[in-house]
Amino acid sequence: MKPNIKFADRVERLTGSISREILSVSKSGNTISFAGGLPDDDFLEGMALPRASELSYQYGASEGDCELRKLFADRIRGLGREVSWKETLVLSGSQQGLDLISKLFLMKGRTVIVESPTYLAALQVFRFFEAKVVGVPLDDEGIDLSLLQKAIETEDIAFVYINPTYQNPSGANYSEVRRRKLAELLNESGTLLIEDDPYRELSFEKVQKNIPVVSRLNTNWIYLNSVSKILVPGLRIGCLACSENLFDSFLKVKQTADLHTSRVSQSIVFQMLQSQYEMDRHLSQLIGVYRAKRDEMARSLAKRMSVYADWKLPEGGMFFWLKLRGNRSSKRLMKSCLKRNVAILSGDAFFAEVANNSRWLRLNFTNPKLEEIDLGIQVLSEEVLVNSAV
Amino acid sequence: MKPNIKFADRVERLTGSISREILSVSKSGNTISFAGGLPDDDFLEGMALPRASELSYQYGASEGDCELRKLFADRIRGLGREVSWKETLVLSGSQQGLDLISKLFLMKGRTVIVESPTYLAALQVFRFFEAKVVGVPLDDEGIDLSLLQKAIETEDIAFVYINPTYQNPSGANYSEVRRRKLAELLNESGTLLIEDDPYRELSFEKVQKNIPVVSRLNTNWIYLNSVSKILVPGLRIGCLACSENLFDSFLKVKQTADLHTSRVSQSIVFQMLQSQYEMDRHLSQLIGVYRAKRDEMARSLAKRMSVYADWKLPEGGMFFWLKLRGNRSSKRLMKSCLKRNVAILSGDAFFAEVANNSRWLRLNFTNPKLEEIDLGIQVLSEEVLVNSAV
Repeated sequence: MKPNIKFADRVERLTGSISREILSVSKSGNTISFAGGLPDDDFLEGMALPRASELSYQYGASEGDCELRKLFADRIRGLGREVSWKETLVLSGSQQGLDLISKLFLMKGRTVIVESPTYLAALQVFRFFEAKVVGVPLDDEGIDLSLLQKAIETEDIAFVYINPTYQNPSGANYSEVRRRKLAELLNESGTLLIEDDPYRELSFEKVQKNIPVVSRLNTNWIYLNSVSKILVPGLRIGCLACSENLFDSFLKVKQTADLHTSRVSQSIVFQMLQSQYEMDRHLSQLIGVYRAKRDEMARSLAKRMSVYADWKLPEGGMFFWLKLRGNRSSKRLMKSCLKRNVAILSGDAFFAEVANNSRWLRLNFTNPKLEEIDLGIQVLSEEVLVNSAV
Repeated sequence: MKPNIKFADRVERLTGSISREILSVSKSGNTISFAGGLPDDDFLEGMALPRASELSYQYGASEGDCELRKLFADRIRGLGREVSWKETLVLSGSQQGLDLISKLFLMKGRTVIVESPTYLAALQVFRFFEAKVVGVPLDDEGIDLSLLQKAIETEDIAFVYINPTYQNPSGANYSEVRRRKLAELLNESGTLLIEDDPYRELSFEKVQKNIPVVSRLNTNWIYLNSVSKILVPGLRIGCLACSENLFDSFLKVKQTADLHTSRVSQSIVFQMLQSQYEMDRHLSQLIGVYRAKRDEMARSLAKRMSVYADWKLPEGGMFFWLKLRGNRSSKRLMKSCLKRNVAILSGDAFFAEVANNSRWLRLNFTNPKLEEIDLGIQVLSEEVLVNSAV
């Protein structure tokens, strides 16, 4: 017997599952975790989920259930993007959207443009499908348009992937002008836009809640959303909407991926989203909890970290994004904090380029308990000091 | 603006979604459907699903929840295959297993060997990942070993995919001798076995229930199972187990696909599988319903179709597999039956080769109502007669 297992070439690019590792660390007993991107446990467990309809027990359509697709389409139209429910697809979480998009558009020789920094699990799947991934920096208004234009002119672009509203990890929120100009730039070259938008509703500044989606002005566009950050991640329900010319291919590739998304999950999410009144009440409670935690972390960071690092107050989303001053290494810091049961995440994994980006770190404020936040930041600041001394 | 959408090369091979189309036909009002592979609606809707634990609301591990993985491992060990729960992965339905397997092992130039006929959705995903797919015929005992050996010697084989117990579509059930000899043949060349086994528990002949899995003797193996045929397909829960050398890659590729499977679905399935007593009671009721339907279809076919076609009584699973006599075309028959609101499925889509296989048809007996079966078969026989006359 000779072992004869040969993996496909793409498997070489299957990197260590960073977010999985983070998750297993975050879960372990007495760790204060700023590392993941998880909702508040107590809030989640206190939710009363409706029962799934018994009609959801049978096999269903690959597109997802009509009534849920219609609700998703309504919500997207509410953000300024005209779309028919017939061009919406229910996903098994929005990560699945990245998988389906990669299958349809990526192959060796194609380039994906991402923000620098960007969502790490997106990087993983784009790389796995053998794309070249190029990062374009963010400034205060959003992605840098002149660098983006240069990239579009020189590369064989499959698509541009952005997370313009309360970005993971940086918290960036594109200005309205940048949103419009970005759409114009992409339309000029016919470039496909992927807009990933899971954090928009976690807005701590009331006035910004209805900032329009970038893709409302795009010709070739794909919009991803999820209920994981606003309802229940364990249900794994996301949504993809796209320009009409793309839908049929998504439907076919969704079918080969998992036939369809859990209809029990779909039925539960439909019932929760159905009442705007209940959703508003739920969201305002959730945002209240998260705002208090953000403010606590802001106070604690200001008190303990302002000598060592720079950051901006996130207006929404789940993260602080810190840049360490001097030549401190966030990777080293991550290891030494973990020894003291505080989990943070080094920023390296969020950059397309392997270049030295180890001065960044991401801190989640939604999952740690309110009363743990200052304690964890204290440990962080002590370890920064130790690391500086080395 | 110039449209600039370029799909990846593999998208050319993304075929029409036959099972999706079947499903939408089967769902339409007054059609008697023998076309799909769906459970009995009334039985399903009468089931009382347990409530998911509130611990399932949070994000979870890509591997799936421990307690469910342990139950799956126990069940597989009960079929003769030694395996640790640490080498089991919870899937979002077993179709996802085919997707993950394809990502890990398939690329242009690799060959997949399947049974001839085989499961149509497996063909779709193997083709999509640019494999050459070669069918090896089944005889009364299982896959033809000498033809299989020839194929292994001449092709660059990624894996051999089989559905050895109450196969979809043929109902074939490998003999114990063939199971053993197949494992030996694959071990000699180190060839990877994929054993897809969703129908084993739908056994209408008591004595055969514990026929061992093929993969119990294999060195390089992947075993797929699902609760869709025995519990609730709408939950989308399947399971993959594999040789130790493969698990880590599956875990990574699962994470990029959808982070993890719906934990609400996992929690419900865990509670249902947990009690062996309840499961036995449930299965014996389900099998009672299906056996009555199978017997009704057998009676009706014997009475109305024995002049036109040949078939064997399926000992398990969900399908009759008929071969039309003479030069009758099952494709034409499918169309003319559909005009009279009876849905059947031509066998063409179940063969790897595009050659003329249009004398076969598959009839599902689990989804149509007992009292509709004879009526539907009557329409079928009348349309065969009309088609013969043409």
